[in-house]
Amino acid sequence: MKFGINFFPTVGPAEKPAGRHFDECLRLAELADRLGFHHIKTVEHYFTEYGGYSPDPVTFLAAAAARTHRVRLVTGAVLPAFTHPLKLAGQLAMLDNISKGRLDVGFGRAFLPDEFEAFEVSMDESRARFDEGVEACRRLWQEEDVVWEGRFHRFGPVTMLPRPYQQPHPRILVATAKTPASAQAAGRNGYGVMLVPSINKREQVQDMLALYRKSAVDAGFQPTDEDVHMSYSCYLSPDPQEARERGRAYSERANRALASAVASWRTTSSADYAGYEKIVDRVGHGDFDRQLSEGKALVGTPDEVRARLEDIREWFGEITVSLQVISGDMPYEESARSMTLFAEHVLPAFG
Amino acid sequence: MKFGINFFPTVGPAEKPAGRHFDECLRLAELADRLGFHHIKTVEHYFTEYGGYSPDPVTFLAAAAARTHRVRLVTGAVLPAFTHPLKLAGQLAMLDNISKGRLDVGFGRAFLPDEFEAFEVSMDESRARFDEGVEACRRLWQEEDVVWEGRFHRFGPVTMLPRPYQQPHPRILVATAKTPASAQAAGRNGYGVMLVPSINKREQVQDMLALYRKSAVDAGFQPTDEDVHMSYSCYLSPDPQEARERGRAYSERANRALASAVASWRTTSSADYAGYEKIVDRVGHGDFDRQLSEGKALVGTPDEVRARLEDIREWFGEITVSLQVISGDMPYEESARSMTLFAEHVLPAFG
Repeated sequence: MKFGINFFPTVGPAEKPAGRHFDECLRLAELADRLGFHHIKTVEHYFTEYGGYSPDPVTFLAAAAARTHRVRLVTGAVLPAFTHPLKLAGQLAMLDNISKGRLDVGFGRAFLPDEFEAFEVSMDESRARFDEGVEACRRLWQEEDVVWEGRFHRFGPVTMLPRPYQQPHPRILVATAKTPASAQAAGRNGYGVMLVPSINKREQVQDMLALYRKSAVDAGFQPTDEDVHMSYSCYLSPDPQEARERGRAYSERANRALASAVASWRTTSSADYAGYEKIVDRVGHGDFDRQLSEGKALVGTPDEVRARLEDIREWFGEITVSLQVISGDMPYEESARSMTLFAEHVLPAFG
Repeated sequence: MKFGINFFPTVGPAEKPAGRHFDECLRLAELADRLGFHHIKTVEHYFTEYGGYSPDPVTFLAAAAARTHRVRLVTGAVLPAFTHPLKLAGQLAMLDNISKGRLDVGFGRAFLPDEFEAFEVSMDESRARFDEGVEACRRLWQEEDVVWEGRFHRFGPVTMLPRPYQQPHPRILVATAKTPASAQAAGRNGYGVMLVPSINKREQVQDMLALYRKSAVDAGFQPTDEDVHMSYSCYLSPDPQEARERGRAYSERANRALASAVASWRTTSSADYAGYEKIVDRVGHGDFDRQLSEGKALVGTPDEVRARLEDIREWFGEITVSLQVISGDMPYEESARSMTLFAEHVLPAFG
């Protein structure tokens, strides 16, 4: 098992100005590096408190890379639908070099209708754009004199600069929220997966994971714990009552941000997003106590969280867990305390 | 007069792997911060030794921001033709916050035919795309609930996050290589200009500058030295002979990179780029001794460079100068020596 820190921002200017937000996140990134966490991660979203402080994860991760020495940097995820592959492959290769090979690249399809609308991209092209974007980036990293004749982009021969620091290219992870075929394709291509336990039943996650692992092995790959990422909201305190109260407040805060961001799914449907309409209801009925009892949130004392993670390991095997330790207007000190308690009392149990 | 450091890379993998390049540039950025330079700057280019290590200037500047405390960060320039304004405005706003308001944004039209071809953007749309991109970014920074109905993009109402740290928005500079109308428009809009003395006659630069300043004043703005940027290749040594020999080698190296990048202008013409065909000949005939005698390179002993800068101040008035102290496989120590000699013996004279 590996453990990192997720910096998915669920915050807006009224709660925390962005200058303070990034200052605190960079200090937490340094702390993660010192405490021995495996990675730091952030997302690409726009416009709302659900991730909107991070329209370009590479910008934050580049700053974090410059302040850290060993922690890995993970995009969770970048969205090829909204950025030309020449730009995306190039900026990621810069980050890979700036960090001396500490980059793992998670790609996502994007799923918020308002983002697709603003970028004037049809959601029905989502999967095709994703597949083309990931493959174009991989080839731009791995090959010289690339000629690309795709549905959305045509270029070449070009040799992308800078060449990636990691050869043949940084590890590729694919965000697979709800679609088994995505997990299967990731395995077949030798990519990792980022699964989303919070919005799926445990059995669904297990099924996707089994499909992924089988598909990878069938294709000749041996996925490790670093190839399977899952993110959990995380709040630790020595006082179980305080942990639960604060953890509940921040978790509900994050759920409200998600609920607001996905509201337009009520009036959206797309063949590329079967089942996504249900997200609104599922998020709307988000029940913290149930989430906690189902092992979908890492909230409690260090002992309680360690027990939860033992369950998670039993359910999913050896994976990489990203701890979401910030939310809304949470003070820096509380995030730092969760991380420190985790590093001191939980990390050692998972070797 | 203000003085900063330009990190325009003219280097490829055969001379300096990108990992070493960025490591050295970040150390030089820290040195610039310590020595009291005004800014660090880098460019957006693709594919060749002429800038190709920097497909996304924001990525490098974010890393540099995290390692520095007071030096300003300047994009010189970002290219709206190749990035959606929602992405560009967003990543620049992140950098403005990460650096706590140290960002100045230079925008450029781009001018290399191979880049336009790879991104499938017509050069004949260059000016229209530039105008739309800059104005869209400005409005996304300055306003909430922006509705944009442009020729190339339509979106809104959206409120860009994060909001910029600087209010109403970071300083905007416009790269104006050869086109007087661009300088005039910049002045009218209250933007600064980035002029290119190396590829123009001194009188042309003076004319553009006069046009810019008059147009700004007529529109009610009072441009300062920070609104006029010019970049010069720079090599200092206590030994005049060594300075000239090493400065010549690196300057010719950079000229060869430019000559190679602009070669396709021989077979390109565009109404949006009147006069650009001549760049090939001008660059091809680049004569270092003539460049030096015409005050287009800051190469020599500290005394010689100080005298050159007094000429430049006489020609152009109070401006901001970016010193290009890296080129090709130049060792870190030589760049650091140029900067240190400049800071100790030249900066105080313009203090």
